Amino acid sequence: MARKLTLYIAASADGFIAAPDGDLSFLNAVEVPGEDYGYNVFMATVDTVLLGRKTYEKVVSMGVENPHADKECYVITRTPRESKGRTIFYTGNITDLINRLKSENGNRIFCDGGGEIIDELLRAELIDEIIVSVIPVLLGNGIPLFKPGRARQPLTLVSAQPYASGLVQMHYEVNH
Amino acid sequence: MARKLTLYIAASADGFIAAPDGDLSFLNAVEVPGEDYGYNVFMATVDTVLLGRKTYEKVVSMGVENPHADKECYVITRTPRESKGRTIFYTGNITDLINRLKSENGNRIFCDGGGEIIDELLRAELIDEIIVSVIPVLLGNGIPLFKPGRARQPLTLVSAQPYASGLVQMHYEVNH
Repeated sequence: MARKLTLYIAASADGFIAAPDGDLSFLNAVEVPGEDYGYNVFMATVDTVLLGRKTYEKVVSMGVENPHADKECYVITRTPRESKGRTIFYTGNITDLINRLKSENGNRIFCDGGGEIIDELLRAELIDEIIVSVIPVLLGNGIPLFKPGRARQPLTLVSAQPYASGLVQMHYEVNH
Repeated sequence: MARKLTLYIAASADGFIAAPDGDLSFLNAVEVPGEDYGYNVFMATVDTVLLGRKTYEKVVSMGVENPHADKECYVITRTPRESKGRTIFYTGNITDLINRLKSENGNRIFCDGGGEIIDELLRAELIDEIIVSVIPVLLGNGIPLFKPGRARQPLTLVSAQPYASGLVQMHYEVNH
């Protein structure tokens, strides 16, 4: 089976992944003790993580050294920097990277954001699956999950799972 | 019970309600004989319809004289025009209209679009319920369901219903 590149992300009902300043406090509304909305089950299928430089720095600024230290982790950046454990700061062409990863044996490749990387991957039609957790709030403003200016791509719904908190998780396959 | 203003609409998974030219052919992907996704049950609870002038003209251009002839129908426009049966061309303040309608006895008020009216109603925090049917397609471009630049508003999930076609219908109450 071919290796899949999966976008797994939370968004407000009006399609924002963060407030304009990157703030994620809208996620607090669905924080329920003992409920991870399938995150750990999903992460057990992932061996490689892709994230943008701003998202990486956001995570580091929150005091987390690297939340994906047990995975191969590619931080997409324009500024060369030395690798840190299994974290690689990647300055090359993103399409080349994904095509190489997909040609190798392995498990799921998880795109952890942010907005710029998601847009570039969608635009290049490299994303195979979208798992979006829709948070019951209109954020009103922020960083959009989907930027306009892409080609049309049909999806196949795999599942739609509502939770008691009002979060709805939708799992789509992208039909290439 | 207070009268509710309900936004009932279909959108692509990336949040567009129509292609840039207003084209709605992306809805064809979920056309299934005998399946109306609850539209008739919903419409039986509606006695008043609100729609924008462009949306009204789009419907008329499709050869439909007025799809809501049995309801009180307000077409929001900047150009005064004579009423036609129960269709009223309304040039006044939209907040005043909604407040008047909500103060009167009656059933659901249905907002049938389009983008400009939805944005104005959301911005004025006049919408009480959002029922959105998410179509399994990334449209890539088009008229957004939600424009940026609004205040944050929490929602309560009433239901999330997936269908065999891949459409997922989410029903939210807006917490004012």
